[in-house]
Amino acid sequence: PRRPEPPATIPLAALEILPNGAVSARHVQKADVAAELSLNLRDLRVVDPTFRNESPVVLARPTAMVIHLLHVRILVTASRVLLFDPHHPAVAALTPRLRARLIDAAHPLPFEMRALEAVLVDVCCGIRAEVGRLKPKVQAALDVMSKDGEFGGRGVTEGLDQLLPLEMGLNELTGSVGMVRTALNEVLMSDEDMSDMYLSWKSATGEERGVDEHDEIEMMVEGYLKQVDAVAYELGRLLRAVKTTENVTQIRLDASRNRILRLEVFLNLGAVSVASAACFAGLFGMNLLSGWEEDPHAFWMVSVMSVGVAAIVFRSVIVWLRWKRIFS
Amino acid sequence: PRRPEPPATIPLAALEILPNGAVSARHVQKADVAAELSLNLRDLRVVDPTFRNESPVVLARPTAMVIHLLHVRILVTASRVLLFDPHHPAVAALTPRLRARLIDAAHPLPFEMRALEAVLVDVCCGIRAEVGRLKPKVQAALDVMSKDGEFGGRGVTEGLDQLLPLEMGLNELTGSVGMVRTALNEVLMSDEDMSDMYLSWKSATGEERGVDEHDEIEMMVEGYLKQVDAVAYELGRLLRAVKTTENVTQIRLDASRNRILRLEVFLNLGAVSVASAACFAGLFGMNLLSGWEEDPHAFWMVSVMSVGVAAIVFRSVIVWLRWKRIFS
Amino acid sequence: PRRPEPPATIPLAALEILPNGAVSARHVQKADVAAELSLNLRDLRVVDPTFRNESPVVLARPTAMVIHLLHVRILVTASRVLLFDPHHPAVAALTPRLRARLIDAAHPLPFEMRALEAVLVDVCCGIRAEVGRLKPKVQAALDVMSKDGEFGGRGVTEGLDQLLPLEMGLNELTGSVGMVRTALNEVLMSDEDMSDMYLSWKSATGEERGVDEHDEIEMMVEGYLKQVDAVAYELGRLLRAVKTTENVTQIRLDASRNRILRLEVFLNLGAVSVASAACFAGLFGMNLLSGWEEDPHAFWMVSVMSVGVAAIVFRSVIVWLRWKRIFS
Amino acid sequence: PRRPEPPATIPLAALEILPNGAVSARHVQKADVAAELSLNLRDLRVVDPTFRNESPVVLARPTAMVIHLLHVRILVTASRVLLFDPHHPAVAALTPRLRARLIDAAHPLPFEMRALEAVLVDVCCGIRAEVGRLKPKVQAALDVMSKDGEFGGRGVTEGLDQLLPLEMGLNELTGSVGMVRTALNEVLMSDEDMSDMYLSWKSATGEERGVDEHDEIEMMVEGYLKQVDAVAYELGRLLRAVKTTENVTQIRLDASRNRILRLEVFLNLGAVSVASAACFAGLFGMNLLSGWEEDPHAFWMVSVMSVGVAAIVFRSVIVWLRWKRIFS
Amino acid sequence: PRRPEPPATIPLAALEILPNGAVSARHVQKADVAAELSLNLRDLRVVDPTFRNESPVVLARPTAMVIHLLHVRILVTASRVLLFDPHHPAVAALTPRLRARLIDAAHPLPFEMRALEAVLVDVCCGIRAEVGRLKPKVQAALDVMSKDGEFGGRGVTEGLDQLLPLEMGLNELTGSVGMVRTALNEVLMSDEDMSDMYLSWKSATGEERGVDEHDEIEMMVEGYLKQVDAVAYELGRLLRAVKTTENVTQIRLDASRNRILRLEVFLNLGAVSVASAACFAGLFGMNLLSGWEEDPHAFWMVSVMSVGVAAIVFRSVIVWLRWKRIFS
Repeated sequence: PRRPEPPATIPLAALEILPNGAVSARHVQKADVAAELSLNLRDLRVVDPTFRNESPVVLARPTAMVIHLLHVRILVTASRVLLFDPHHPAVAALTPRLRARLIDAAHPLPFEMRALEAVLVDVCCGIRAEVGRLKPKVQAALDVMSKDGEFGGRGVTEGLDQLLPLEMGLNELTGSVGMVRTALNEVLMSDEDMSDMYLSWKSATGEERGVDEHDEIEMMVEGYLKQVDAVAYELGRLLRAVKTTENVTQIRLDASRNRILRLEVFLNLGAVSVASAACFAGLFGMNLLSGWEEDPHAFWMVSVMSVGVAAIVFRSVIVWLRWKRIFS
Repeated sequence: PRRPEPPATIPLAALEILPNGAVSARHVQKADVAAELSLNLRDLRVVDPTFRNESPVVLARPTAMVIHLLHVRILVTASRVLLFDPHHPAVAALTPRLRARLIDAAHPLPFEMRALEAVLVDVCCGIRAEVGRLKPKVQAALDVMSKDGEFGGRGVTEGLDQLLPLEMGLNELTGSVGMVRTALNEVLMSDEDMSDMYLSWKSATGEERGVDEHDEIEMMVEGYLKQVDAVAYELGRLLRAVKTTENVTQIRLDASRNRILRLEVFLNLGAVSVASAACFAGLFGMNLLSGWEEDPHAFWMVSVMSVGVAAIVFRSVIVWLRWKRIFS
Repeated sequence: PRRPEPPATIPLAALEILPNGAVSARHVQKADVAAELSLNLRDLRVVDPTFRNESPVVLARPTAMVIHLLHVRILVTASRVLLFDPHHPAVAALTPRLRARLIDAAHPLPFEMRALEAVLVDVCCGIRAEVGRLKPKVQAALDVMSKDGEFGGRGVTEGLDQLLPLEMGLNELTGSVGMVRTALNEVLMSDEDMSDMYLSWKSATGEERGVDEHDEIEMMVEGYLKQVDAVAYELGRLLRAVKTTENVTQIRLDASRNRILRLEVFLNLGAVSVASAACFAGLFGMNLLSGWEEDPHAFWMVSVMSVGVAAIVFRSVIVWLRWKRIFS
Repeated sequence: PRRPEPPATIPLAALEILPNGAVSARHVQKADVAAELSLNLRDLRVVDPTFRNESPVVLARPTAMVIHLLHVRILVTASRVLLFDPHHPAVAALTPRLRARLIDAAHPLPFEMRALEAVLVDVCCGIRAEVGRLKPKVQAALDVMSKDGEFGGRGVTEGLDQLLPLEMGLNELTGSVGMVRTALNEVLMSDEDMSDMYLSWKSATGEERGVDEHDEIEMMVEGYLKQVDAVAYELGRLLRAVKTTENVTQIRLDASRNRILRLEVFLNLGAVSVASAACFAGLFGMNLLSGWEEDPHAFWMVSVMSVGVAAIVFRSVIVWLRWKRIFS
Repeated sequence: PRRPEPPATIPLAALEILPNGAVSARHVQKADVAAELSLNLRDLRVVDPTFRNESPVVLARPTAMVIHLLHVRILVTASRVLLFDPHHPAVAALTPRLRARLIDAAHPLPFEMRALEAVLVDVCCGIRAEVGRLKPKVQAALDVMSKDGEFGGRGVTEGLDQLLPLEMGLNELTGSVGMVRTALNEVLMSDEDMSDMYLSWKSATGEERGVDEHDEIEMMVEGYLKQVDAVAYELGRLLRAVKTTENVTQIRLDASRNRILRLEVFLNLGAVSVASAACFAGLFGMNLLSGWEEDPHAFWMVSVMSVGVAAIVFRSVIVWLRWKRIFS
């Protein structure tokens, strides 16, 4: 299990889309593709769905772009597109939109950039939809928590039960978005990579492209990077709201706990007082001679005294607390 | 819902302001504007209020500046200004100030920079006003919390109830200010963008401007960036004060809780002691023969003994606690 | 309240100091100064004390340096110095030291750099004095907390009551020091700014200074930046010590709370046991026929049995706890 | 113990692998190797297993690469490889794979790069295997915690007991991965280092290699850096999941604690009420004359009254709580 | 106290070491040294032990290196070394090692670099020894905490009492190591500084050295920087382990607290039940006519009923809890 490259003999399922819109399902060998396009086998690993942990990347090679962003794994050349992992639902949903854009010959951008733009649009929409799906749920869970935060009733617990997976989801998504940002940023930071991406121009003219001639692609990638950035900010805001609410909920629970405990002190004090009175009364309940057995007023006197004992105990503890300033 | 670009047929409401101060409400098609000024449709998305999540940006294009900062969405050319989303209250408030600055022909700066400055002034004032609105409220909530932090009385809870939305607001504002900073920073980091912004000069001379000739715009943007920075520092300070107070409140609640619990231990010990005395007295209350029924002193002796039982129980537990050093 | 620039007609109080040491109190119009020195009005905002939130900055302009660091707001030209906000206590204290340095003609540095150095010395001393003022107080509060952390006695609360404002002060100071660092760093990062600062040389020779000829000023600013850095490290260390102590105090309070609660469990168990014994005795106190009324040994037997009931209850709960392993 | 360089006389155990696949165990003197390859003694410290704390690094020297990544300590020249610390299990497992790759003469890459790639493959697989080992355990511990978080039953404690060492392991691994990333990044950031690595080319041609001619090595290192990055992201995600679960567990415990305490308040209130009734009954149990001794209805009346006393106490405290709004 | 530069008349104690190994104790005036070597007075402040807060720095000046790293304050020229603060124990320990290295004429490095290397070796060993001293203690404290975390017994408190100063020490050391890293990094980032450091070469040839000719010094400083980095990683790992253990201990204490509280609920419920039974028995102890006074079976019936009352109370509260799902 420690050999990183699986035997190259398992072909990868892929959809080939040509500029005329012809879509054909194929199984391709990575080695064949690499040889045909003079790519490294290593480059093709990023579009191989059996490598699940590969980080998103946009590779610019002289003859092709190798793109892996979220679920999209695609190889773009000047004259065709290979879309890998075509049975993944998100990829299947992308296929018609990608094809529509590729056959749009009236579009000012060349073939390979239309492919790239279709992918970027799909990625941006994907993460935005995911944020849109999580946001109201998170908001609802936070509302439940902050409204019932007083007594640690079921509200807080239910809110937290909902929140835990959502927070995990937000963290996961933040990670994915961050990696997409990094991938796009890396494209923007390399002039060579960007001018290398003019595949149609290069295959049409047969020349090398000047390293600074990449305005269209720079503006396009920049634009989508900004959209990804906006989503990242939104995610950060949601996560901060979650953190803040959790934090405040915890202090509110603490504060209300102290209030409950203070109440318990008074109840306990009441219990001690009543027990003292009962003990006092109990002494006169002993079958021993107090000498007041026949006194007709003793019952009432002692009853009042026992209540007085309770009051004295209660009062003196309160005074002691005030004097020690334990409750101030 | 996954098509990012809405059909281009919905016109955008906008206010057109000309150098002579003429203001006219218009509905513009993004495609027309893009064609007229050779802009990408994508560039105009940042001034389209239907895209709510676009991040703030100042785009320098050869024929125009496309600006989106907070609520302001504006397109500036050498000879006119298009202010989008004109019915937004903050934008409506900006309009007269913007117009006043645009018609001020005696101003040393050219038309497009006066527009930019008006926007920057408005943005800086906006965020400063927002901070000024939040700051006293936050301060008041923190005061409530830190004064009543001892016993988790209603004070802490009320303070937290006020604080939670304020803290959310501070986080939100910090995010917005951060994005404005990023947008201004990006302008300052690109010499090309800054020299591209001299729209009047370019349309007057018809030449390209040297990439380093952008002193006025650099100083202007830098100045407003510093103001935004100052607000960001202020916000950071407020947030830190909130965090610190929350943290300290939590430990104070913890400490006072331990004090309450310690008190409860003594009350419980008192209860056990009194119960022991009552139990002792209860034994002599049994209808059984103790042999002291006729002893005239037994009542007082046993009464004193029952009090003694209570005292012994109380004292021995205290000694045991000291010996085990549980309370030291 | 949203006009950022106040009417330019309110003159600013300032002290003018000339190279010969003549000090004169003046009221200057920002517009006049700006016109005389070809500065932007905007540049003068940083020395205007009515703008309280301006962040510290050292602006290098062709004819002057505009400096705002902490409380010092000063305008330095090749032939005079304008010290604003002269009634501020810290500024008043600076004045004689600044004058002494300015008239020191034997000093190897030119006039404007002597002024700059006097300001930097004052700023460094100011923040160092502030740290020196806060540090022992913070240390004392932390000592109080960590010594009395066991039982949440008054010590922790008193320590926290002292600590809260100190921590706020440390945060505030950290912010100020950070902004001073940023301002000095910005000077060091711009070769143009530093060579622009040779005002005497420029006014003496009338030439532009080479962009790399700024060794003296670079070394000077670097030296003071290092001092500010050292203070920033010291502040960070203090804040970390505060955080660590708070954190550890919280866990100590938690741990001792668990110990108190464990004790309460035993007290409550004792209460239940004694209550059981009392209840047992109470049954024999009922005015009903137990049949042992005349038995001379019953009293002692039942007394012993009631104590036995208490012991059995106590013991069986303890055994049950051990069996359920609740306390291990 | 403060001499950093041990006497150079202790030879290091190493395996020498030649291009023909011959493997020989040797003991080498660092000084000899340094002299032979014109390396600094200092450079060889990174492959000396007696220096346990050396951070990972890939050093490019004119005649050799000195590599230390995780457990692998290796010296690569154009014509042989020295693998240090050969008895370490991970190194022993690497040896056959390294040899297989070195003798693969059909490989397009030169000898030294095949060695480097074998090391990088091994390192990537190693950290990926370690993450794969930790991840399911962490997930299991988190599941245990989040399912039994309600009452602080044994589940949370058991989950935490499992989690503590796992979290330590994750932190450790994050540190190692971070250092490997830094080491690879440093290679990528130095053009000189990368072109220096073409040892075979240099020894074959005897010339200096152009500083920009390093495409193969750059792509290779970049590829493995991306894999390391992906692992680092995965680790970060795991650590965030741990933090989030811990945090949420803590608030859930807090919330359920408040619920328990609220219950205790009611139980304590019940105890006070019952004790009041008992006290009331106890008064009539005193051997004093109440005057109702002979009243045939008194027993039932007083019994009902004592229950009424309990009910009144219970109810009035509840009303008092509502009136003071302590429980809302 | 606000004059930063003390009167220059207090001489500094220093040890002078010459290339021939002659060591002489001297008292030097900063002004004399500055004049002799054309240094700024300010530069010498970093080697003045009366300035305690100066941050570590390696200053390269045309005629000398001024070095302050941890406790070492040293001035190195091409022909002698001045070691300040020679009575500091760590400096005293360094002296013989420094001298041994300086007189080693066979060493390939020139005089000034041998001095620098001796200082770097000493600094690296110093921080490594400090980490080695703290690490086992921290580990022991963490072990104590994590083993006795269940019940907040004395173990956690003792562990924390040990941990607090250790954590402070780790933070302090992290700060120092960070500053040393910054100082070394600053050397590496300035080509001018590094080539300026070839003092012997410059004094021998009398020429300026090319700004890129600094391979030896770069490799040397880089090597020691890597060692410092390794220590910094180690420190970070220790601090993370402390944080993780503290965090997990806190949740474990929380969880076990909930378990204790749940137990208390049952004990309190037991107390209420027993009190109910006692109250029931107490009613029959009243000196009133129940009508069963002569019934021979009443005693047993009522006794059983009173136990039944206790059981009913206990059971019904348990059922109520289940019905309200308070404990699930």
